[in-house]
Amino acid sequence: MELTYSERVKNIDPRPLKDMFAYGVDPEIISFACGNPDSSMFPHHELASIAADVLDKKPVQSLQYGKTNGYGPFIETLRARLRDVQKITCAADELLVTTGAQQAMEMISKILVNDGDVVLVEEPSFIGSLNAFRSYGAKLVGIPLEDDGMNVDYLENYLKHNREKISFIYTIPTSSNPMGTTMSEEKRRAFYDVIKRYRVPVLEDDAYGELCFDGVHPTTLKNMDTEHLVIYIGTFSKILAPGLRIGYVCADADFIDTLSMAKQTADLQTALLPQLLCDGYLKTFDIKAHIRRLQACNKEKCDMMLDCIERYFPKDIYYTRPRGGLFVWCDLKRDIDTNEIIKDCLKEKVAFVPGYAFMTDLSVPRSTMRLNFTAVSKELMPVGMERLGKVIEARSK
Amino acid sequence: MELTYSERVKNIDPRPLKDMFAYGVDPEIISFACGNPDSSMFPHHELASIAADVLDKKPVQSLQYGKTNGYGPFIETLRARLRDVQKITCAADELLVTTGAQQAMEMISKILVNDGDVVLVEEPSFIGSLNAFRSYGAKLVGIPLEDDGMNVDYLENYLKHNREKISFIYTIPTSSNPMGTTMSEEKRRAFYDVIKRYRVPVLEDDAYGELCFDGVHPTTLKNMDTEHLVIYIGTFSKILAPGLRIGYVCADADFIDTLSMAKQTADLQTALLPQLLCDGYLKTFDIKAHIRRLQACNKEKCDMMLDCIERYFPKDIYYTRPRGGLFVWCDLKRDIDTNEIIKDCLKEKVAFVPGYAFMTDLSVPRSTMRLNFTAVSKELMPVGMERLGKVIEARSK
Repeated sequence: MELTYSERVKNIDPRPLKDMFAYGVDPEIISFACGNPDSSMFPHHELASIAADVLDKKPVQSLQYGKTNGYGPFIETLRARLRDVQKITCAADELLVTTGAQQAMEMISKILVNDGDVVLVEEPSFIGSLNAFRSYGAKLVGIPLEDDGMNVDYLENYLKHNREKISFIYTIPTSSNPMGTTMSEEKRRAFYDVIKRYRVPVLEDDAYGELCFDGVHPTTLKNMDTEHLVIYIGTFSKILAPGLRIGYVCADADFIDTLSMAKQTADLQTALLPQLLCDGYLKTFDIKAHIRRLQACNKEKCDMMLDCIERYFPKDIYYTRPRGGLFVWCDLKRDIDTNEIIKDCLKEKVAFVPGYAFMTDLSVPRSTMRLNFTAVSKELMPVGMERLGKVIEARSK
Repeated sequence: MELTYSERVKNIDPRPLKDMFAYGVDPEIISFACGNPDSSMFPHHELASIAADVLDKKPVQSLQYGKTNGYGPFIETLRARLRDVQKITCAADELLVTTGAQQAMEMISKILVNDGDVVLVEEPSFIGSLNAFRSYGAKLVGIPLEDDGMNVDYLENYLKHNREKISFIYTIPTSSNPMGTTMSEEKRRAFYDVIKRYRVPVLEDDAYGELCFDGVHPTTLKNMDTEHLVIYIGTFSKILAPGLRIGYVCADADFIDTLSMAKQTADLQTALLPQLLCDGYLKTFDIKAHIRRLQACNKEKCDMMLDCIERYFPKDIYYTRPRGGLFVWCDLKRDIDTNEIIKDCLKEKVAFVPGYAFMTDLSVPRSTMRLNFTAVSKELMPVGMERLGKVIEARSK
């Protein structure tokens, strides 16, 4: 086909995602590469009963065109839940339902990023978000991520000495993807203090906030947000099921209004049945009990992975000890390029995501890797980790 | 919030869609404004049984993350159906499932349109598509739409005398939105001959191809496409249910590959349950019989609307006589601005979409209107049409 692609296409480096998908093709591969939650935990019988009920009794609400910002009763349920769980108070016109949190990244980039604008991101950060920002021509600037969250001094120093237009700062404060680290309460306050002084908008991606193993939801930046600087993004992908593609944005009404215009050109509205399933589940079943079961299941698997790292990996590596979420991050140090390691791993039928994929500069070799601990079964986890350990050991000599 | 919006936001004129939504707020309004199919025809009990079944038995396939291009078995079902119904032969890697056809417009614009590129569109054309093109900075150029489709001589003349970069031509060849006209078989051949000579890519939006009252699907441009110039867009919104948000794109594999990259940043993948519902319905039930019932129901309502126009509207107006689809287009002629008419109509509790909304230049007053004949019940249609006729008559004096 004789097409001329737009500049946007050239802004995206397809390698990281192509690689990740390639790892999933062979069913014999034990994959720590994906971001999948544990599918054995999906409350699918409950969702089946809700689906049958709403399709039988509410054909218009579940199948006709609906409102762009989301299904009205679901918006109300979301509001009540935000107040209760995330301690965020918002009006109905301050919420918009998205087709997964990924769509929030896409649409927010579309309406906020002009070619060449700076987007500040934690380094490393989530590849799907980075690619959305890149696709609209953002210049990504990385702020080092530490065990207790973003380096706030580095951020302040950057803001002090740079005068380029900054679209926003993107952060995953709790159980970050890929590192699994959580910003301390002290840092949250210091961070908010800085963005308040420099008046920089913040995208708070709280995909994992409800999945801290101890059941404590850290204070959201949105909750602290007296200055209307925070755009909060939530999702049901990790606490219910990602295939539903239900996320949401909570922000000022005028911003939501502009976002709604982007949503109309993006997909008119999010599919209704998944919205009604989330709404029905929240109204009919005990999601708090479900999330407690998830926390326990995830903690058990995370502990198992950390044990495997101690047992099978070289002793002098760095790795994170997550308080929640789905990921452990390892730095093998030495002169190891994990882009080389992965090739041997695929031969041994085990996979992870090489660290380069989560960086602002994709061209530099990295000795880091992201390991997902929720997707693989408890039976296969030690098998996969032992294989991985052997490849690393062979490469470390 | 102290945000700076991107240039893209300024490219979209929010009025037309805001207006349309405003018309739908009051439940007492008889609205011919929307693009809704007849919700009494949704096969919702059948979909309820499929939903319960797949959620019970296939939790991973219906709830976990899936492939970006679409659910594998559904892609195969789609391929077989395209061969059978639209007479389009394609490979699995030439198909991508979208979150409604609207998302196809959005993503295709994102990857093909650079600021200032020309997009050629039928005039009038579908507002949702025009806004997607506008949002990426397209300069819209209108090609007059006639009773038998786009004016192909005008198109050829434009192509002959203009050297600006053209991203693509957008057409709804069958039962166009908003006019309800269908491109004749002769014009399809002439049109394809022109785009072949000038090598211009074409977006073929075939939302209504299966809904011709006589059951005959006109030849798709994709079927004629020996030169790999056509990107074909289909949807289940009008033949099954729009709330499912299931559309698809059929094009060359290299284009689909690039589109897939855009899809990953847009929403990772379309929600799985709606894909499994479409797939299950196509495999378990007789969609051809369902579509025949839709054709008969829509024809009855269209005839009813045309009768009402004859009875209640002034005699010297122009209106289309659709062979299918969802819309009738009226030109009240004289010095009437339908943007004024609509204000009186809302007071009388009846609504339509003023013609200006479908034009490349939104600033010019128009004497035209789009009327949907599928959403309103047979009982309410004459009531609404009589109200509309009275307002027009009062304004025509």
